[in-house]
Amino acid sequence: MEANLERMAAFFRGVPAKLRPHFKNHKCPDLAARQLGAGAIGITCATLREAECLVHHGIRSVVLANEIVDAAKIRRFVELTRSADAIVCVDNEMIAGDLARVARDRKTQVSVLVDVDVGLHRCGLPPGEAVVRLARSVAEKGLRFRGLMGYEGHVLRKPPGPEKEEAAAAAMRPLMESRARLEQMGMAVEIVSVGGTGTYAISGSYPGVTEIQAGSYLLMDTDYRKCCTDFDPALTVLTTVLSKTEDERIVVDVGLKTLSCERGIPAVKDLAGVATRRLTAEHGIIDIQDPAVPLQVGDRIEMWVHYSDATVNLHERIYGVRNGCVEEVFRVEG
Amino acid sequence: MEANLERMAAFFRGVPAKLRPHFKNHKCPDLAARQLGAGAIGITCATLREAECLVHHGIRSVVLANEIVDAAKIRRFVELTRSADAIVCVDNEMIAGDLARVARDRKTQVSVLVDVDVGLHRCGLPPGEAVVRLARSVAEKGLRFRGLMGYEGHVLRKPPGPEKEEAAAAAMRPLMESRARLEQMGMAVEIVSVGGTGTYAISGSYPGVTEIQAGSYLLMDTDYRKCCTDFDPALTVLTTVLSKTEDERIVVDVGLKTLSCERGIPAVKDLAGVATRRLTAEHGIIDIQDPAVPLQVGDRIEMWVHYSDATVNLHERIYGVRNGCVEEVFRVEG
Repeated sequence: MEANLERMAAFFRGVPAKLRPHFKNHKCPDLAARQLGAGAIGITCATLREAECLVHHGIRSVVLANEIVDAAKIRRFVELTRSADAIVCVDNEMIAGDLARVARDRKTQVSVLVDVDVGLHRCGLPPGEAVVRLARSVAEKGLRFRGLMGYEGHVLRKPPGPEKEEAAAAAMRPLMESRARLEQMGMAVEIVSVGGTGTYAISGSYPGVTEIQAGSYLLMDTDYRKCCTDFDPALTVLTTVLSKTEDERIVVDVGLKTLSCERGIPAVKDLAGVATRRLTAEHGIIDIQDPAVPLQVGDRIEMWVHYSDATVNLHERIYGVRNGCVEEVFRVEG
Repeated sequence: MEANLERMAAFFRGVPAKLRPHFKNHKCPDLAARQLGAGAIGITCATLREAECLVHHGIRSVVLANEIVDAAKIRRFVELTRSADAIVCVDNEMIAGDLARVARDRKTQVSVLVDVDVGLHRCGLPPGEAVVRLARSVAEKGLRFRGLMGYEGHVLRKPPGPEKEEAAAAAMRPLMESRARLEQMGMAVEIVSVGGTGTYAISGSYPGVTEIQAGSYLLMDTDYRKCCTDFDPALTVLTTVLSKTEDERIVVDVGLKTLSCERGIPAVKDLAGVATRRLTAEHGIIDIQDPAVPLQVGDRIEMWVHYSDATVNLHERIYGVRNGCVEEVFRVEG
């Protein structure tokens, strides 16, 4: 984990863009503090609850890289802006109006990024006229327009190479066109927030990008590792062998309620002669390929986390291990 | 939910086998209490933590339908048997010895079922000699042998029909042969615990089965519904529309961290003209098939839970709704 932290920090010492790591991956305020200590300018998060957790833990610069639309949540977000530089995304005129109204009532100012759909086709406005219109409108309503967000989530997991670089550039280009048009109108675009662990180097070097939201790089997982070899998987789940046949299979006490299979089947760490067959709700079934594999009921084995976001989401603590000893316990509070 | 509860209870009024519903599905002590009120003879569970939760909530008859092998967990389980008829599964001579030793030290008696692999190929001994040997051995060690467990998990999701019936019978037959051999040796086989929601009627009618572990029937889900139409899905997740394009897609604030996709993509409830495209970690992306669909940002829609076990596992509460009003809050404590 510390090697990943340092490797990413080193990259950002060499480019104008800054790192604002995504909290959704590990949800641990203590890990966010480590990221800030290594040079991150603030934290990105996915939910209002995560933003509240970060501010509660004293983190004063937070981008909520998502829309919030519910009236109660808008009030909670506006409240948050009293104690932190909290910025939220908008892609809708009506919601921008709601935010502005609550901010006015509470006599505070709320900062927003306009969310641009750069090809992921999830939230966000199509780049161009709609973005410019909403950016001007939020400013007119009294919100503080801080810039643009464009998450190229559809590019992250492409294998490295020219095709990936072109796809990332194709996502950044229209974002920068919107940026240029806004600046021509005299609107400052302080923030252009993009990227993830799969594109941090490409998008983080793209002219005009001010910050990168990468999060998975810190703990990594074996799914991300397939497309991004700059960082090493650092996250496993410790399991106990519950059952064993003579030479056909072992069963461990970890299933998909503990170790997400949403993106594929987790592998066993550092043990030759075995291969995960499948996970059911509470069990992991592992084929014995070499009958000499030295495993008995009660033995502990580690399994790689294949999808860290969804696995951390199932746990309350992450144990920091150095040289085989637990050195620190990170609470999953987000 | 109440209709499912009553439909299952009615079936068990007509057969000798009893229902001991599986707690792993809903993890709510208050729902377990409803099941007991409707005639269940006790509760089945998957983990030691669930067993402790049930006993803590005053449930006095619990089958832990799983192995426990860790020394600390064995001590916790033995402690539990002081205040409840708690029964655990074994498939290993050494672990049976550990259990017996701790029980002896604590001056208590521990009840066990011998776990039989009836074709799922997860935990359990192959039927026949190995089962008979372990059953005799646990009794010799001073454990209380209560019977056999054989979970035909590989049959549950087959479509109804003669093939499924034959597969269930093929799983029950060797279990009953082991039972007969044990009884010939003078060993009482008080419990034969099998089954799930997909086989409750077939296995629950099979001669010699004493109890059925079905759990999913109560809340049901749209995955189980494909192979079992006796019960109606009763579980949804309430979502809010976060973002909407004119006629291409809406995005809701529920992703796979909230609504499991481990067995497939959840559908939207009671709303024509839309279809779920996919769920990412925090978002659900829904195609608009009919541009007239009356949905705006901020609207609430319900999504069906496709896999209830893994979805309940992501939540702290289940809201009981009758005629559109929240009538009861069930705490997910397991």
